[in-house]
Amino acid sequence: MPASIGNTETQFFRYDGAAGPFALRCGESLAQFDLAYETYGEMSPARDNVILLFHALTASQHAAGHTAEVPGLAVEWDKECQAGWWDSFVGPGKALDTDRFCVVCVNYLGGCYGSTGPASTDPATGEPYGAAFPRIAICDIVDSQVKLLDHLGVEKLHATVGSSLGGMMALSLATRYPERVGTVVQIASGVGTSALQRIHNLEQIGAIEADGNFRGGDYYDGGHPERGLALARMIGHKTFISLRTLNRRASDTVRDGMEEDDSWYQLQKPIESYMLHQGRKFVRRFDANTYLRIMDAWQSFDVLADAGLGSYAELFARCRHQRYLIFTIDSDVCFYPDQQERLAAALAEGGIAPMRITVHSEKGHDSFLLEPELYTPHLHYTLDGAAG
Amino acid sequence: MPASIGNTETQFFRYDGAAGPFALRCGESLAQFDLAYETYGEMSPARDNVILLFHALTASQHAAGHTAEVPGLAVEWDKECQAGWWDSFVGPGKALDTDRFCVVCVNYLGGCYGSTGPASTDPATGEPYGAAFPRIAICDIVDSQVKLLDHLGVEKLHATVGSSLGGMMALSLATRYPERVGTVVQIASGVGTSALQRIHNLEQIGAIEADGNFRGGDYYDGGHPERGLALARMIGHKTFISLRTLNRRASDTVRDGMEEDDSWYQLQKPIESYMLHQGRKFVRRFDANTYLRIMDAWQSFDVLADAGLGSYAELFARCRHQRYLIFTIDSDVCFYPDQQERLAAALAEGGIAPMRITVHSEKGHDSFLLEPELYTPHLHYTLDGAAG
Repeated sequence: MPASIGNTETQFFRYDGAAGPFALRCGESLAQFDLAYETYGEMSPARDNVILLFHALTASQHAAGHTAEVPGLAVEWDKECQAGWWDSFVGPGKALDTDRFCVVCVNYLGGCYGSTGPASTDPATGEPYGAAFPRIAICDIVDSQVKLLDHLGVEKLHATVGSSLGGMMALSLATRYPERVGTVVQIASGVGTSALQRIHNLEQIGAIEADGNFRGGDYYDGGHPERGLALARMIGHKTFISLRTLNRRASDTVRDGMEEDDSWYQLQKPIESYMLHQGRKFVRRFDANTYLRIMDAWQSFDVLADAGLGSYAELFARCRHQRYLIFTIDSDVCFYPDQQERLAAALAEGGIAPMRITVHSEKGHDSFLLEPELYTPHLHYTLDGAAG
Repeated sequence: MPASIGNTETQFFRYDGAAGPFALRCGESLAQFDLAYETYGEMSPARDNVILLFHALTASQHAAGHTAEVPGLAVEWDKECQAGWWDSFVGPGKALDTDRFCVVCVNYLGGCYGSTGPASTDPATGEPYGAAFPRIAICDIVDSQVKLLDHLGVEKLHATVGSSLGGMMALSLATRYPERVGTVVQIASGVGTSALQRIHNLEQIGAIEADGNFRGGDYYDGGHPERGLALARMIGHKTFISLRTLNRRASDTVRDGMEEDDSWYQLQKPIESYMLHQGRKFVRRFDANTYLRIMDAWQSFDVLADAGLGSYAELFARCRHQRYLIFTIDSDVCFYPDQQERLAAALAEGGIAPMRITVHSEKGHDSFLLEPELYTPHLHYTLDGAAG
């Protein structure tokens, strides 16, 4: 395993509104916004070696190396945050090889790791946005990052890479700015939101909103909806991990019980304690309003409507110069393998034949974070080939 | 399809404590309790034609016919309750043939349809039990019904039948009172609680407890935890129905939206509206404390520990005179087919060879409520044969 990239730092880009307010899909706009981002590797003089990497649901701009702190956050930048979430994939000689490429990763607009989001101060009031923060769509998140690319002088990306929800953003970027993207890599993702995802997401939204502390989203001056957010995380978490791995992780000694608080129910098995622990540790590092905004964006993702087109044939006909690499994880119960099949079928309607790889893993969806050896050879092959 | 059994009525049995308080698995006891039950068909003079039917999670004693009302309930006895939940299975000529058998069905101890439960008046205080209602185990529910059998003078059951959670109760009865049971029928059930069920149940418990109205269970004098209970129902409901059926049911016209209340999130697809509707209509007819008690009983079910035995070999060696019929639903994502395989393996350890039938259905777990034709022939065959 190559070494980590070392100490890293989050940078900030401010869209200052000089060119006009940033229009959002929901009809509202932001007069200005900040994006927190990191870069790994050097940009070539021609700025043609950039890979834009989209993080997944609750990760951050910090993909590789060690970022000790990010100033001004409303949440805890804990140990899990400090370690780059794709450190085993990004660095010298790694899957995204920083000896050759400059990798850029950006916290979502609406996020809580330095990009403008519901916990940020609304310049109009001097208070946190809270419920007043506008709805954010997948295409808004992508568009905000295009503003950053403009700022960095990057006209065309060597590639865009996204796993899970990030894969939908890579697809949104590639289809709405076809001329700005060379290669598209989607790992454990899809072309749309499945019915089961929609149900799981709705449950998570309901969990946060049912919490008495939520108060419509204006909770920053009081108790946060931690119980609801923890439950939401539990609901999501079980889809990220295979049951086999879950059972293995739930060692018999773990007891982080509901016994300690006002619960009537007493935990009975280690796996319950494990799930509860996943929820509880999460609430320290994440903001419930951001979670809701991202769930909402996921629910409303529509790659055709976002591009203003009516068919995959039209959509992908514009993308025939792009190369597509699609990874499936056979044990994935978050983005099931049939979701990548649907993407491949959609690409085929536009005349694109993607390279498709199914990795065999016992780890479920999270394999994309944990098993670089399953992805690295094909990432090298595709990313190097496209550069050649 | 044979006709319905017609108008039916709930009866009540009071365990009055004259023979001593009713001891519960948790160490507490009830000085007295009531059970709501119904019977269909006539009991033979020898009282040897009785089938004890266990209902599933949120059903009631009212399995067949039409019971217009049940007096004294804290919840609404709505249209869904008035129609017998197994009406297409219980009646003259039906799978449980009331021309031959007397079918008895009893609301769980801890329930909310007339049996003593958390919403009942605590004789010690004159107030609803609420949080003070003791924990109830599967074996307590079964034992309470054995008291009813004693009262009815039924020494040995012709059969016990249970689907889903009710199947676990049938198993608990058959293994702890082996001499009192002839035939055991388990439909879409299992020998224990699976890891995924445990996680889903924990989520549902968390949903109720996160609701600000729950107040530890003492909510009867104020707002009920309806939002949490509705969310719990949604979480459970998706495991009862196949995704294909869910999508079909979610017609494009249904809109029972979060728009109407204080939710930030706006529904986006009919399937979301459908799920929400399932949750919302449920809270009118069910009590959150009862739901919690049943979840807790499900989590703690341990057929070996309940019998005080250490192996399936010992447990089922005592049951060799019993006949077992086990149904699997191939599309079931609540009790997955491997759970019935585990039961069959456990029975085999005790030298029992069950009859096993897998029905092929697109409806998922709820097939056992909806498709009598898939079960009736084998139910007839086994129940008639055992009687012969």
